[in-house]
Amino acid sequence: MTKLTPLLQQLIEALRILPGVGPKSAQRMAFQLLERNRGGGVRLGAALTAAMAGIGQCQQCRTFAEAPLCAICSDPKRQQADVLCIVGSAADQLAIEQTGQFQGRYFVLMGYLSPLDGIGPTELGLEQLSELLAKGQINEVILATNPTVEGEATAFYIAELCQQYGCSVTRLAQGLPVGGELEYIDGTTLAHAFSGRKRF
Amino acid sequence: MTKLTPLLQQLIEALRILPGVGPKSAQRMAFQLLERNRGGGVRLGAALTAAMAGIGQCQQCRTFAEAPLCAICSDPKRQQADVLCIVGSAADQLAIEQTGQFQGRYFVLMGYLSPLDGIGPTELGLEQLSELLAKGQINEVILATNPTVEGEATAFYIAELCQQYGCSVTRLAQGLPVGGELEYIDGTTLAHAFSGRKRF
Repeated sequence: MTKLTPLLQQLIEALRILPGVGPKSAQRMAFQLLERNRGGGVRLGAALTAAMAGIGQCQQCRTFAEAPLCAICSDPKRQQADVLCIVGSAADQLAIEQTGQFQGRYFVLMGYLSPLDGIGPTELGLEQLSELLAKGQINEVILATNPTVEGEATAFYIAELCQQYGCSVTRLAQGLPVGGELEYIDGTTLAHAFSGRKRF
Repeated sequence: MTKLTPLLQQLIEALRILPGVGPKSAQRMAFQLLERNRGGGVRLGAALTAAMAGIGQCQQCRTFAEAPLCAICSDPKRQQADVLCIVGSAADQLAIEQTGQFQGRYFVLMGYLSPLDGIGPTELGLEQLSELLAKGQINEVILATNPTVEGEATAFYIAELCQQYGCSVTRLAQGLPVGGELEYIDGTTLAHAFSGRKRF
């Protein structure tokens, strides 16, 4: 085995596309599957093939869905909601859903504005968002984008769009994370927490 | 998306069989592939399916191979060697090959003796090893098993087997790793380094 066999080489290279997997971990993964869990390897191969082919995007909110509409967009109760939460990714949407606090509708951007990477309003589906807002059913848009430079820039752009349709626009509160220690919290967050202080 | 779609759920569960991948990383991997690299996901699926089906074991040395014999076992030059290096896994064999220091033959155990896990001499192919040694071509067996409890126990068992066939048995030197700092080296290694000291 001066060099690896072709299929093994291909497998190790393919594993490296996974986030956080470098050459050494990819090699370890490939060997472990081949030595100890070929059944699991076969299942993972099939799951990847099925997921890449079978998972599309919801026609209405753009989240991942296996049908034209996702579970939330096909839920009549939620479709009556007049609050729309805009998130950057399906993972963010999942995190919000897991809190159980929000019963409205979603719009999933699947990215943030990034002209240098060729990601503009079209890539984020903002025409689709305009059409949705034009129907007049949404009263409040909650901007739940990441509190990063890209997230903020995108939120700013979308806020202007929403105001054109007369929706009120809100954004998630910024401040101290629960369980955080003041000593270790960055200055900007602390400043936000001060300016956004509430009556006790 | 109160719950994930079935294919997404299956993909996240299947990704968890990879070593070092917990529920949160698996979710991150699945979302990243779907959002940004569907082509890579399709390739990884195909590579896994092809590797699990197409990679078997060399009939002679038990390493991973796509043909009945691996590249080393089908190399006439190496087949004349009278030194046999016994390693615990194909990854260990690869590490040794990468040093370029060893030009002999290999035997890959694909595990270590572990009666509680049902891994005995048969699972490690020791009958196959006996047959190889019985041919009388091997003069020296190098035990390159891991310096762990399981590795040592397996080495001990194999050493006895080799002696039955009149082979001389050696093992890799134990001592300080290159670049290590004495201060941080464990006591047992240090003791081995002392007892195995060499003339300067």
